[in-house]
Formats: sequence, structure tokens, C-alpha cells
Amino acid sequence: MIKRLLLVLNFFSILLHGLSQQKNLAEKLGHARDAKLLIVHADDIGVAHSVNAASIAAFEQKGINSGSIMVPCPWFPEIAAYVKEHPELDLGIHVTLTAEWKNYKWGGVLPSNEIPSLLNKEGYFYASVEEFVQNAKLPQVEKEVRAQIDRALAFGIKPTHLDSHMGSLFASPELFKLFQKIGRDYRIPVLIPMNMITRIAPQFVNLVDTNQVIVDQFFSLFMSVPPDEWSKPYNNFIQSLVPGLNQIIVHLAYDNEEMQAITIEHPEFGSAWRQRDFNYITSEKFKTELKRNKVQLVTWREIQNVPN
Amino acid sequence: MIKRLLLVLNFFSILLHGLSQQKNLAEKLGHARDAKLLIVHADDIGVAHSVNAASIAAFEQKGINSGSIMVPCPWFPEIAAYVKEHPELDLGIHVTLTAEWKNYKWGGVLPSNEIPSLLNKEGYFYASVEEFVQNAKLPQVEKEVRAQIDRALAFGIKPTHLDSHMGSLFASPELFKLFQKIGRDYRIPVLIPMNMITRIAPQFVNLVDTNQVIVDQFFSLFMSVPPDEWSKPYNNFIQSLVPGLNQIIVHLAYDNEEMQAITIEHPEFGSAWRQRDFNYITSEKFKTELKRNKVQLVTWREIQNVPN
Repeated sequence: MIKRLLLVLNFFSILLHGLSQQKNLAEKLGHARDAKLLIVHADDIGVAHSVNAASIAAFEQKGINSGSIMVPCPWFPEIAAYVKEHPELDLGIHVTLTAEWKNYKWGGVLPSNEIPSLLNKEGYFYASVEEFVQNAKLPQVEKEVRAQIDRALAFGIKPTHLDSHMGSLFASPELFKLFQKIGRDYRIPVLIPMNMITRIAPQFVNLVDTNQVIVDQFFSLFMSVPPDEWSKPYNNFIQSLVPGLNQIIVHLAYDNEEMQAITIEHPEFGSAWRQRDFNYITSEKFKTELKRNKVQLVTWREIQNVPN
Repeated sequence: MIKRLLLVLNFFSILLHGLSQQKNLAEKLGHARDAKLLIVHADDIGVAHSVNAASIAAFEQKGINSGSIMVPCPWFPEIAAYVKEHPELDLGIHVTLTAEWKNYKWGGVLPSNEIPSLLNKEGYFYASVEEFVQNAKLPQVEKEVRAQIDRALAFGIKPTHLDSHMGSLFASPELFKLFQKIGRDYRIPVLIPMNMITRIAPQFVNLVDTNQVIVDQFFSLFMSVPPDEWSKPYNNFIQSLVPGLNQIIVHLAYDNEEMQAITIEHPEFGSAWRQRDFNYITSEKFKTELKRNKVQLVTWREIQNVPN
């Protein structure tokens, strides 16, 4: 009996040893096991010309190395045309189920009569996640999300990841499960910001698909800071990084008439805010901070291409 | 027999005399019978923030006294919100069935599965009138045009007239008849530019509904002119005005990043073009030219309110 127990223990010991020898994500990507991996990511591409222009400039200046696109928005064709010329860019789909601005609106990719639960009485997406989640019927959400991915594919975009505009797909357990299921079906990684989930929605932790790539530490500015202290929270985040996969989200635009009109009465994530994000992320001090903290930049495409 | 003929002739003479005594449009509007009536009209409102901002400024500076709105476009909610605050503005519907710009697109107001003949394979309106007229099925055109008017009404806009973006509703006799029928049904005057019809599509003359208000002389810049001669063709038109109802169409925008991106690779009706139109129409020399030529400004709302 004891001999048998020892055999079993030995077996587990070998197994555990084997597991610990299994390469982690950092190693699979060619970095040290304890590397601080970072994706620098621009949201909301496609929403406006100003956002497209600033995001493209940030890619070119190597301020960002990843971004995600809002397919139902008016300026989607512009970024799609750019991606056709630059297929190497790391771009995912910023799944969009809300239209938050006062005077500038959009609806879904699908015909409005196929997704009535996602649209307000004017035929646009709801402005808030609260209204979305109160009204949205799951099968219609699923159809619309798939249609957004399919439309991107039809425009020649090969999405490297999926994330969720305003976090609408994190608004209920059913939506979160659906989001991951769609990612699995399309074999596209879904951004799962584990630190946010643990802090804001711990009941979701058990719903996380174990096959998903997890972003351990996710950072985005959610509240305005004084303009001359813009880099502070970003630098704090970079300095506090621990080994694992990390992601910074920025919201880029040029502070111009178009962007001011879109973000009217909304200083948070507004036109000046986005210009400040642009100035910071394309600055030398950001690059220096990354180097100083020995951060390894990685992209969703590299992650997507890692064999399981 | 001769007596009978004389009686008949006398009857016609009285009838003709009566007709000649009937007030013409100018008199009904409170002007002299031989007044040179003019509507100064901005097209394409709603297509872009730049266009909305310039058109609003032109209204405020009394450079224009009328305009028409593109309901399916992304910036429609912005102009609708402005109209709610300024219901006195003379605004009609610029019925829109094409989406001509390279990287900035829109589709219909109706669900795409109800108007498949109006949409290209990407789900947007066709870029050209040629493609539109080759593919469009009349019942789908009718539904979409009505839906655009209904949407404007739902947003609190009371359209004073209807006109047709890129003239798509003048592309076939059937479309032209349909356009007038919809105008009759909604009791909204339809812009019928008689000088253009006579010159370009004389076969349409007999199709003009006799109850329609006719714009005798219609002028729009169709080809670029040297920037420093921008006022020339407009002044020529104003100086050549004869009594009747006349309309100048301008295309207003501020020459900024948004407008340059929308009109990319398209100098005609481009960003600088529209800025020049704005500069001209809001200039003192335009107002002076109108005064010098004793032009009477009228609006579509005044015309709409004239009893038949």
C-alpha cells in the first residue's frame, strides 16, 4: 500500500516537474521566463478621421504597437484601406455595441430589423452600457458581434484579437461567456484584463476560459489628471510592472474641430484628453521609461501565433 | 355659326384675361410681379461636422437663407439638434441615395435587407449615380426616400422642400416621377431646376407636375475656377437673372483635416472648394451684388406656405 502511494506520489512529482518546465508565454515568445511583457494599444480606431490619423501616426512613430478597430463607425473604410497597405500592423476588433457621443451616432453592422434589442428608438446603438445590458438580447448580440468580425474580414483585416468598446461584453456573465465563445470559434484571442476582473467583477474569475491568454495587468486612464501630470499614472504603472503579460490602453486623437465636436460636453476621453495621450505615447520619455524598466514589447499577433 | 365662334372666342378672352390677372408666385410672396426671386441654398448639411459648422455660420451671417440635410449621414444628429433650437431655419431634405467619398461611407436609413438594390457589396450606398440607377429597384427607392423624410420628421425637422443629392432622382423618368409623387404625398415642394432640365434632360419637361413650384434658373458651380476668380460665375449668374424663381446652390465647409480626409483625391466639391464657397457667400461683395441687381431673397418655407 505504501509502495503504491509512493509510486503515485512519484508520478505526480514527475508531472509537476514537467509542468514547471513547460514554457510560459514569455518564453514561447522568445523572452526570459520572468520578462515583463507589454502591449501598447490604441482603442477606438475607426470612430473618427482624427482618431485614425493620430493612431496611424502613433504606429509610425512606434508609440503604440497594437490597436483595435470599431467596425460599425463611419471612418471604418479609411482605416480598412490603410490596413490593406499595411497588413503587418497589429490590429484587432474593438467590438462596438454602444454609441456614446451626443451628436455623432452609429448603429450596428446588421440590418436594424435583425438587432432591434440593440438599438434605441432612433435606430442607433444605446449611449450607455447600462441601457445596452438592460435591452440586449443575447442571440442578437452574438449575431452582431460575428457580423462585425465578418465585415472586418471582408475588408481584408485579419484581426489579431478582440476587445470590447466600453466593456459592454463584460456587463453580465452571459455576455462575458459569449464573448469568449466567439473568440474560440474564430480562433482570435480575447482581451481578458485579469486585474480589472479580480477587482471589479470577481464573480467572473471562474468564468474565464482556461485556454484564453490572460492579460495580468491592464492599465487605462479612466479619470482625467492635470495636463502637466499626464505621464505620472502611466509611469507609475510601468514602474510597478511584474513579470507577465501587461497592456496599456490609450485613446488617441488630434485635438481638432472634428474631435471637439464628437466629444462635446464630455471632457473624459475628450478631444484634449486624446491629444495628451498622443503626446505622451509618442514622446521619448515614454520610450525611455519602458527601457529603464526593462519592458519587453509584444503584440497580439505574436501571441495569436504561439502554439498552445 | 360665326356668332357662336365669337361667343367662344369671347369666353377664352375673358378666361385669358382672368389668368393674366391671377397673382404669380412673386406677387403671392408680396413682391412685384416681375421680381427676381432668389433662394441661396447650401447642400450636403449633415454629411460632416465641418459642413454643419460652416453652414450654421453661413445662416448666422445671412450668407445663405436655405439649405438641405442628408439624413443617412453620420453628422445628421448634430444638425437635427441645432434645428431643434432654431426651428425658424429654412431646411429641406437632401434626399441621399449615393455615398461618393472614398474612405467615408454611409448606407440607407432602412435596414439593409429591405433595400439591397441600393447597396453595394460592402453594404454602403453606391458611389456614383450610374451604379445607383443601374441597380436601384423603384419600390426600394420609394421606401428609402420616405424613410429619410420620416426620420427627419421624427427628429423634429419640418422639411420645407426636397432636393436630390447628386441628382440621383433625375436619373430616369421613373425616378423623377416618383420624386414628385412623394413630394405631393408629403405636401413638400420638390426642387425642379427647369433651366437644367430643359438643357440636359428635355424629355423630362413633359413629366413636370404642373402643380409643382418651378425654379426657373438654377445655378451651382460644377467645375472648379481659379481661386481668385471664384465670385465671377456667381456674379455672372446674379447679373443675368430675369424675373422668376431662382436658386443658387453652394457647398459649404471649413477647409480642415476632417473635410480634407472626406474629399480625398477629389478636388471638385473638395475641402478647399467648399471653403471658397463659404468665403464668397458670406462676403460683403455677394450681398452688394444682390442689392445692386435688385434681387429679392425668398425661402422654400415662404413658398411652401403660399396657398395654391
